[in-house]
Amino acid sequence: MRKPRLMTPGPAMVPEDVLLELARPVIHHRSAEAKDVIVEVAAGLKEVFRTENDVMILTASGTGAMEAAAVNTVPPGGKAMVLNAGHFAARWSSICKAFGINVVSVDFEWGQPVDPDRVAAALKEHPDTVAVFGTLSETSTGTGHPVEAIGKVVAGTDAIFVVDGISGIGAMECRTDDWGIDVLCAGSQKALMLPPGLAFVSVSPKAWKKIDAFDSHSYYFSLKSARSKMKEFDTPYTPAHTLILALRTALRRIKDEGLENVWKRHQRMSEACQAGIQALGLELFSSRPAEGLTAFRVPNGLKDAQIRNKLTEQFGITTVGGQAKLKGHIVRIGHMGYTDELDVISTLAALEMTLAELGLDVEPGRAVTAAQQVLMGQLAGARA
Amino acid sequence: MRKPRLMTPGPAMVPEDVLLELARPVIHHRSAEAKDVIVEVAAGLKEVFRTENDVMILTASGTGAMEAAAVNTVPPGGKAMVLNAGHFAARWSSICKAFGINVVSVDFEWGQPVDPDRVAAALKEHPDTVAVFGTLSETSTGTGHPVEAIGKVVAGTDAIFVVDGISGIGAMECRTDDWGIDVLCAGSQKALMLPPGLAFVSVSPKAWKKIDAFDSHSYYFSLKSARSKMKEFDTPYTPAHTLILALRTALRRIKDEGLENVWKRHQRMSEACQAGIQALGLELFSSRPAEGLTAFRVPNGLKDAQIRNKLTEQFGITTVGGQAKLKGHIVRIGHMGYTDELDVISTLAALEMTLAELGLDVEPGRAVTAAQQVLMGQLAGARA
Repeated sequence: MRKPRLMTPGPAMVPEDVLLELARPVIHHRSAEAKDVIVEVAAGLKEVFRTENDVMILTASGTGAMEAAAVNTVPPGGKAMVLNAGHFAARWSSICKAFGINVVSVDFEWGQPVDPDRVAAALKEHPDTVAVFGTLSETSTGTGHPVEAIGKVVAGTDAIFVVDGISGIGAMECRTDDWGIDVLCAGSQKALMLPPGLAFVSVSPKAWKKIDAFDSHSYYFSLKSARSKMKEFDTPYTPAHTLILALRTALRRIKDEGLENVWKRHQRMSEACQAGIQALGLELFSSRPAEGLTAFRVPNGLKDAQIRNKLTEQFGITTVGGQAKLKGHIVRIGHMGYTDELDVISTLAALEMTLAELGLDVEPGRAVTAAQQVLMGQLAGARA
Repeated sequence: MRKPRLMTPGPAMVPEDVLLELARPVIHHRSAEAKDVIVEVAAGLKEVFRTENDVMILTASGTGAMEAAAVNTVPPGGKAMVLNAGHFAARWSSICKAFGINVVSVDFEWGQPVDPDRVAAALKEHPDTVAVFGTLSETSTGTGHPVEAIGKVVAGTDAIFVVDGISGIGAMECRTDDWGIDVLCAGSQKALMLPPGLAFVSVSPKAWKKIDAFDSHSYYFSLKSARSKMKEFDTPYTPAHTLILALRTALRRIKDEGLENVWKRHQRMSEACQAGIQALGLELFSSRPAEGLTAFRVPNGLKDAQIRNKLTEQFGITTVGGQAKLKGHIVRIGHMGYTDELDVISTLAALEMTLAELGLDVEPGRAVTAAQQVLMGQLAGARA
């Protein structure tokens, strides 16, 4: 028997009580019962987003929320600035280009955080920028970007700040309103502890002004339609409402734990994982790691598939490799949502054994011990 | 106790074994296991669509498949012909207009079938039509359109034939390739016996030529991206893959029953329901009823909400009213997917009691008996 542990940066593991909600008989999506569910999740999403803005629910992958955020805010021929520091940031550019939006790409080295000063300089050079597209947690590199600082820069301009928070929301601190995020996108299958299929978008009054100023090339992803339906706690089309029902249970879990405690748990998992990885002499890929995943460089002489396949075959652990130009160069361990500190320790233990079996000079136990020391230190700090 | 019976034309009831699949722990969507599932459902969808074309899987409501079908095939400024005979046919026009496509609307009375001769005449008048947008089962009126005959007309032109089969596929005969359907859209929450959240699109070689001829304003719904991923039994973005897993079970049920038997079951339910409604002196709304639902006019002196609320409160049966200009004028009973003849009889029995209690001059038992006679006749015919 190999017990499956889905240590991937989305889809991530789903709590058992959330899964069971999905097995309930389907109800009608316009019934009073279905509306009550949306009333509750609408409030819960606002709390998780830390926003007073409405959070709209889309039946789509996270990329659908990104498309909605782009096509509704920037008219064809308008200027979008993309803070490009990874595979998913680059997706902003691809979406914009498909819809005839002009893209100014401000490029950063993959694995490095976006530098707010360079954003300020680029915005001075391009004062006609309609929207700045950034990322909270770049899943392809495992980097957390300084969204609060970037938000301050953008807030001082006419541009709006649009953030892909798909692998970050619920895993790391993000305060939509306080940080000046005008449009925030999230997906269901990451730290929100659901299977994939739902996406979420919040929109600030500043962003609504941009949206209301033109007729966008959007129908299914029209945020105007979504807004008018959300006022009645409804959606424009038949939503994936068994997932919405399950979302209610997932949001109740976050409320019970406390969002700030959820963030702290992810911080502990993240720091413990980083310490373990480094204790094995491995190199972290990112200079500013995100809280929901840890990426490390594949050690010389090994292939990422050797490591990942052995982790799966021998220990039931699923991880992912690199994407695009990072293919073959990194391994990414997800620790978001329904994941705890002992899942991280188990993964490190399995990684130690795997690397040793693959002939790497590692001392089994070192990563686990390093992670334990981080956790014990943090727990002692919390008690003090 | 009121046992819930979801007699709506989508979302429809979901078999228990399909629901239980949804409660299984989430796996990674790029794993070998997930790919095996897509291989099987890809074949199953082709069978249900009666097509050799690839059927692509989108994470969206059915409307998302309609948007994909429209924006990928007709360039901005190109001409689309919409066969407009109901609320959902009109959605084709709304989608096209949002993307700058010119719409020629060929209008038919709601509740009446599309007349293929008028389509032929309109295509002669508009030989530059890129695509004709039609409907297999118009959910808003309960009408089945003569798709086979329309397909013959369109096949003789340069235009492609795009069909919304969302509430028809799996409920009524539809032979994509034999009938000249170039693009067929379906949704998960109707006769395919799943919760909402997935949509499906098949594309013929004639349609691919139109699609490959220009760069469409689509990213999330790019059929070119979907095609290239489908070749590897994959999807461009993280799909709602717990629904795909459940789809496998639903498709196996259809295969076990036999698609033609599934169509016949829907025919029996449809004819039995129509006979019952008429036996009560009620008027069917459509002159050519679809097999997946039955719509009847609200009898004079009553409001549709009185009937529907009583059905729910007293008997646990959910039905729907009219949409758009039919609001308040009709009641629609769904009988698609995981629904059998006795569900229809139960609904008719409840309707008789409901109408009698509301003061209508109905004789309880008449609708049920009329339905039984239809069923007994059909079953005897099948045995002969």
